[in-house]
Amino acid sequence: MQRSLKEIAESVQARLSGDGGVQVSGIASIKTASAADLVFVEDSENLDLALASPAAAVIAGEFANGTTGTKPLLICSQPRLAFARAARMLCPPFQHQAVIHASAVVSSTARLGKNVAIEARTVMGDGAEIGDNTRVGAGSVIGANVRLGKDCEVYPNVTIYPGVRLGDRVIVHAGAVLGSDGFGYVRDKTTGRYEKFPQVGRLEIEDDVEIGANTTVDRGALAVTRIGRGTKIDNLVHVGHNVRIAEDVVIAAQTGFSGSITVEKNAVIGGQVGIGEQATIGEGVMLGGQSGVLPKKVLRGKGVAFWGTPAKPVREYLKELAVLGRLSKKSKD
Amino acid sequence: MQRSLKEIAESVQARLSGDGGVQVSGIASIKTASAADLVFVEDSENLDLALASPAAAVIAGEFANGTTGTKPLLICSQPRLAFARAARMLCPPFQHQAVIHASAVVSSTARLGKNVAIEARTVMGDGAEIGDNTRVGAGSVIGANVRLGKDCEVYPNVTIYPGVRLGDRVIVHAGAVLGSDGFGYVRDKTTGRYEKFPQVGRLEIEDDVEIGANTTVDRGALAVTRIGRGTKIDNLVHVGHNVRIAEDVVIAAQTGFSGSITVEKNAVIGGQVGIGEQATIGEGVMLGGQSGVLPKKVLRGKGVAFWGTPAKPVREYLKELAVLGRLSKKSKD
Amino acid sequence: MQRSLKEIAESVQARLSGDGGVQVSGIASIKTASAADLVFVEDSENLDLALASPAAAVIAGEFANGTTGTKPLLICSQPRLAFARAARMLCPPFQHQAVIHASAVVSSTARLGKNVAIEARTVMGDGAEIGDNTRVGAGSVIGANVRLGKDCEVYPNVTIYPGVRLGDRVIVHAGAVLGSDGFGYVRDKTTGRYEKFPQVGRLEIEDDVEIGANTTVDRGALAVTRIGRGTKIDNLVHVGHNVRIAEDVVIAAQTGFSGSITVEKNAVIGGQVGIGEQATIGEGVMLGGQSGVLPKKVLRGKGVAFWGTPAKPVREYLKELAVLGRLSKKSKD
Repeated sequence: MQRSLKEIAESVQARLSGDGGVQVSGIASIKTASAADLVFVEDSENLDLALASPAAAVIAGEFANGTTGTKPLLICSQPRLAFARAARMLCPPFQHQAVIHASAVVSSTARLGKNVAIEARTVMGDGAEIGDNTRVGAGSVIGANVRLGKDCEVYPNVTIYPGVRLGDRVIVHAGAVLGSDGFGYVRDKTTGRYEKFPQVGRLEIEDDVEIGANTTVDRGALAVTRIGRGTKIDNLVHVGHNVRIAEDVVIAAQTGFSGSITVEKNAVIGGQVGIGEQATIGEGVMLGGQSGVLPKKVLRGKGVAFWGTPAKPVREYLKELAVLGRLSKKSKD
Repeated sequence: MQRSLKEIAESVQARLSGDGGVQVSGIASIKTASAADLVFVEDSENLDLALASPAAAVIAGEFANGTTGTKPLLICSQPRLAFARAARMLCPPFQHQAVIHASAVVSSTARLGKNVAIEARTVMGDGAEIGDNTRVGAGSVIGANVRLGKDCEVYPNVTIYPGVRLGDRVIVHAGAVLGSDGFGYVRDKTTGRYEKFPQVGRLEIEDDVEIGANTTVDRGALAVTRIGRGTKIDNLVHVGHNVRIAEDVVIAAQTGFSGSITVEKNAVIGGQVGIGEQATIGEGVMLGGQSGVLPKKVLRGKGVAFWGTPAKPVREYLKELAVLGRLSKKSKD
Repeated sequence: MQRSLKEIAESVQARLSGDGGVQVSGIASIKTASAADLVFVEDSENLDLALASPAAAVIAGEFANGTTGTKPLLICSQPRLAFARAARMLCPPFQHQAVIHASAVVSSTARLGKNVAIEARTVMGDGAEIGDNTRVGAGSVIGANVRLGKDCEVYPNVTIYPGVRLGDRVIVHAGAVLGSDGFGYVRDKTTGRYEKFPQVGRLEIEDDVEIGANTTVDRGALAVTRIGRGTKIDNLVHVGHNVRIAEDVVIAAQTGFSGSITVEKNAVIGGQVGIGEQATIGEGVMLGGQSGVLPKKVLRGKGVAFWGTPAKPVREYLKELAVLGRLSKKSKD
């Protein structure tokens, strides 16, 4: 897709310095840019590299103001964000064909919105609802009474258990499982055998959530599991039953949440973190990779970073590591 | 499904106090109960809350004996267990339709029991055997000569490699992979290249096992991988080749077992635990979340909890953490 | 498949001691061997056990030279390797039928090599290319313009996103996801909302790579994610965007790589390891299970083992653990 710099500058709200008639057709990093590409920089050192590259034009921060280079510049306060938005103009997401493939198995009671793409070999149960412009990828299985909102992208081989609800603009990557049973058993003291505790609650995923490949999110036991608006979850993450994650939370790969955890808005959780039952991760808390949070623990502090197992304020943890390192160096054997 | 309290009391072996003719049709937590719901409590504090809730009736422990409340009570020694059993009466698992869907691809040499449900788009290889009342979910692939017992529930998009054997009442959640190759290679000293060590052993999963979503269990290399009767495995767990897990073991999410590990009965293993090759987890051992067990290590002690990496008795580990914390606080920088 | 010892000895380049006309038809461990099986040993203690077992013949190292036992011996310098190669003669991998199943949905613009097996319910997008002798397992979804080389084995229910390229002899186990979007967002400072950073790069997987069940490998953001020739990846591993893994690297289960990491050749990475953005794992480095490597950290040293979080040379880490243990034992409470 080709666009003029003028069009892009208007769309991403950047000030254009140079020839607005220049056409660009792609995005790239400085290292890989070719002559039709748009690149971006966040500091003046990279600006020099960008101007020396074959790129057609450069999105730059306010620091670039007044630069008289060899290329047109698009100047704005958030160059990375402007670049991301320009990328959506130049590399629009794959345009699905609004077709219900002949090999899809769609219940006669399912309700499909306008312009939906139901790809080959999908299975859709009774009473399922698919919003306008939503794509369901090949091989995905949408259980009975599932509700997908508008403009969702469900990649191939996803499984959504019956009754799960997704909002609008939700992205679900391949192999993810939504609404599986939580891990709850009762042990019979007389026989010693485990019996299933009911896992009959709901799963609600709000607007603008993205769920990574092969991630699993369990339904509630008696209540609800909820993923808040705008939360982003990476690959191979586990979310247990009754977990409530608020808005705009970021969760990196392979992190695990056991049951009944509360995560407040704007938390940032690293990869391979493990969080115990009924813990609370407060608003804006940051958890370093591989941290472990004990059951029922409450971590609080906007912008405060925690690390280690059990997780503690990162300075405290680093000091402990340093003290141990010094003691060890002093020790003879 | 509606049931009288009298029916439920008889079925779960509880003593009824109050009107046995009262009908209930659902289960709930105290917080979410409505007027037709049954709830349960395990202590007297919650009993007061339950009696004040809209719930129709309450399952309670022996402590409730003699309580003269406003609601009928079902009194028994294990109220949580009685509640789980009542839940199975009131919310029976989804009744599958005993139909082989026209879109399923079933080998002519597969043998299907009575009342099986083979959902849309399943694929079943030569010589596969499916026991009575078993459901195979949409999109699942059952390899040649796989044997599933009676009353199994295989959710959608599961893959079972050829020759794997499952007992009766086994539940396999969506996306799980059973019988994949173990991770074994031999490095050729002359070329430096890795070549595959044979992964031609078996995988046997006994009765009443539950396997979580996107969990992977490898077949044996030359011998067998075995999951014992009644063992419960959460989501995203990895079980390597030749692992032998005994009966009634509980394994939380994202835990990993490398090759040739032995887990004895009644062990309880937390989430994100990693266990090295040829280690032994003894009968009734408890392993805290994120613990690491070294290869060949043997951990023993019924009811003894271990934690940390390398895993040690939890008191010992907590003492080390406390000692380090005190040293760090005394240290100036 | 039956073979004479003479045939096997020639093929695996071992010296035959005993009757080359003896026929073997299987492989086994010493414990499970029956009369038609071939076994292998790597030391003289196991040689005695092997000679006392029912096995037909024994592959042994040079230490067995001159042994006059009751069974034929195949003597060579790398007995485990010779056994692995003999196993490929005796238990050849499942011979797929070179058939495009009637239920497969294959684009008319896909190009299929000779002798390919496209199993039931696979979906193959426009412009996909499948090399000679490659198998695509049931239920797998091969995106548009994906290129698979020759002699590949793609197990069932795999998802390969559009444009991903695989070399020859690549094995992809069930449920793996290749080419999913990386985890990259830009936060708009004015709204506080995360927007997707473009994830439009490529994924290239070179010859002889093996990818475990339910493993996920993301495509590059703007550049490329690459897995080098001969690298072996276990189950449930996460590889983030722009990661470059060189040749002959071994990665155990549940390990995670965040973005833009470099792994040099011959590295050996244990299970549940977590590696931060832009870190470098040098040539031949060994990383113990559950290690954590900080972002941008560079670990170097052929054959040097690192362990712990943050990862340090294993001796240093063990010394710290020992010092802490001693301090704790001295401490009163």
